Amino acid sequence: MSQFFKQIDQVAEFDADKAAKADLFKGARLFVGTNCFEPGQSQKTHVHAGADKFYLIVSGRARMTVGTETEEVGAGTVVWAPADVPHGVAEALERTVMLVGIAPPPR
Amino acid sequence: MSQFFKQIDQVAEFDADKAAKADLFKGARLFVGTNCFEPGQSQKTHVHAGADKFYLIVSGRARMTVGTETEEVGAGTVVWAPADVPHGVAEALERTVMLVGIAPPPR
Repeated sequence: MSQFFKQIDQVAEFDADKAAKADLFKGARLFVGTNCFEPGQSQKTHVHAGADKFYLIVSGRARMTVGTETEEVGAGTVVWAPADVPHGVAEALERTVMLVGIAPPPR
Repeated sequence: MSQFFKQIDQVAEFDADKAAKADLFKGARLFVGTNCFEPGQSQKTHVHAGADKFYLIVSGRARMTVGTETEEVGAGTVVWAPADVPHGVAEALERTVMLVGIAPPPR
């Protein structure tokens, strides 16, 4: 298996009970992985102290919140959650795959 | 315009003369933007000293190199270019849009 190349589809995992996470790559300064949601699943609003984060919606549709903004997002939306700003997924409206990056990486 | 939500399609830019870059978001610890290629365009092999980077191929097809690995990539491939490892785009085989993240951000 390649050290540097991965297919999102081969890593993304779904869990009927709750939103699921999978790792893609992790370095000293950056983590990338997937967040996957079945319809109706959510991710509680939370904060990463001192870490910048983005989501890219790869497929599906969801309602997301960052700070005081809430938007319905779909494939091709990039969502920016800067350090210390509360963010989360209010509800997935379809089966949804997101690429997520966090810098620095979670411990 | 939203402070936290952007559509890749509305930011991505192409240039007939060379590969084109556009910014999406930049924080103290993370930068995300786009790299866009017309067929035949490339990005010279280069290194980011002390910065981890990834590419996600959003659409199109290209031949990419990281370290000693070269692969043909398409939509859904995530390419990991850890700090100090040479990487580049040997050639875009189709019109190609990539999301790019770098941590810490370029100056």
